[in-house]
Amino acid sequence: MKLHDPLTRYVVRLGDDALIMGHRLSEWMSRAPFLEEDIALSNVALDFVGRARLFYQYAADLMGGEVTENTFAYQRDVRDFTNLLLCELPRGDFAFTLCRQFLYDAYSLPFTQALCKSADSQLAAIAAKAEKESRYHLRRSRDWMLRLGDGTAESHERCQDALDQLWIYTDEMFECDALLDGLIAAGIAVNTEGLRSEWLDTVTETLHAATLVIPEAQGNVTGGREGIHTDDLGFLLAEMQFMQRAYPGLQW
Amino acid sequence: MKLHDPLTRYVVRLGDDALIMGHRLSEWMSRAPFLEEDIALSNVALDFVGRARLFYQYAADLMGGEVTENTFAYQRDVRDFTNLLLCELPRGDFAFTLCRQFLYDAYSLPFTQALCKSADSQLAAIAAKAEKESRYHLRRSRDWMLRLGDGTAESHERCQDALDQLWIYTDEMFECDALLDGLIAAGIAVNTEGLRSEWLDTVTETLHAATLVIPEAQGNVTGGREGIHTDDLGFLLAEMQFMQRAYPGLQW
Repeated sequence: MKLHDPLTRYVVRLGDDALIMGHRLSEWMSRAPFLEEDIALSNVALDFVGRARLFYQYAADLMGGEVTENTFAYQRDVRDFTNLLLCELPRGDFAFTLCRQFLYDAYSLPFTQALCKSADSQLAAIAAKAEKESRYHLRRSRDWMLRLGDGTAESHERCQDALDQLWIYTDEMFECDALLDGLIAAGIAVNTEGLRSEWLDTVTETLHAATLVIPEAQGNVTGGREGIHTDDLGFLLAEMQFMQRAYPGLQW
Repeated sequence: MKLHDPLTRYVVRLGDDALIMGHRLSEWMSRAPFLEEDIALSNVALDFVGRARLFYQYAADLMGGEVTENTFAYQRDVRDFTNLLLCELPRGDFAFTLCRQFLYDAYSLPFTQALCKSADSQLAAIAAKAEKESRYHLRRSRDWMLRLGDGTAESHERCQDALDQLWIYTDEMFECDALLDGLIAAGIAVNTEGLRSEWLDTVTETLHAATLVIPEAQGNVTGGREGIHTDDLGFLLAEMQFMQRAYPGLQW
């Protein structure tokens, strides 16, 4: 499934980030360390899947109704997915999941705030809803960073290990490519490069308060926006897409 | 973990039904046939887990705070769980999950309505919230019965097969035992035997409209209220309780 229209490609990117993030979070449902957290994590997962649905519905509209939201979720191959690699990494332990969430939420809040000002009114409307959620998500994941980082020796170590592993995937959030450049010029897309310093301020302040350290730079891994993914995304899709792949366009 | 106080045992029963039902539903998260249904099913799952939490919190209060809600969910053995067998059966295919849900929702709505009138004000308060959810759940699962039963030949067959398998587990919902008798006399517990005819009316009407037939009676399987469970509950608990079992009373 090749998409050509720049706006459609952009909308699908945003949907892909949200769907894959939501899926990884949903893997915790009924497996979180206690009931309250189980419910909270599941609610965050649902926010992301709901956000994906809005983006995909809009993309389907842009394509004139020849596809539906489900086409994007269930009938594309791994190379067609354009989510950030950060979103697809396996959930790991609880510290890894929450560190990933924090690093992403610290990006997602300023991102959705900026997207609210998009010249595209549909994107701005989705962003307005997502911004409220992101504010809550960031408060939650930041609290967990403090709790884990400044908790026991083991939770601190697990949290620092997770950050060290995740760090090389964070740069991709801010990358601008030719697709973005055109849409930024038209006032539609968010200039993610411009979010970098706010993100780093949030992360630096929080890690400091959590007695954690900013990992040393070790290069960056990217490619998600061009469909170059880790093996793990293939396994995730195999599971998520099984039903629709086995019975394409199934009708009950 | 042996509970002696009748009210506590009753409250835990209700929590167990909700937790196990919620867990089985949560297994569909990211695996439902399309995005809208994925989100809807996950929301229903969260309603049930949330309900379990309220019941368990109340039970913990009744025990004077020596335990918490998490003790009931994560630190009891399979023989201590007193949920209905219907709730623990493996999720099966989508038709099986929705048929189970419909059969339970058709019971849960009149049950929560009756529990709203409990002489125990805490139970009545939990029931007031649960009743609203159950009304929505039943509307949803009834719609699915119509769609699956009166859909394609395959969906009809799968739905009828599911009903045939589930039917022998439905009688347990209405059973009264010595524990219930005492609490019913005190105006606290719901007389479930009295819900049977309303339930059967709802089920008969819906199955008829869905071109499905009421299964022939083949005896009943019970035992859940006494902790006699299927093997499947053990596997469910093994997965759900792993974290708290491996690290009892873990603190981050």
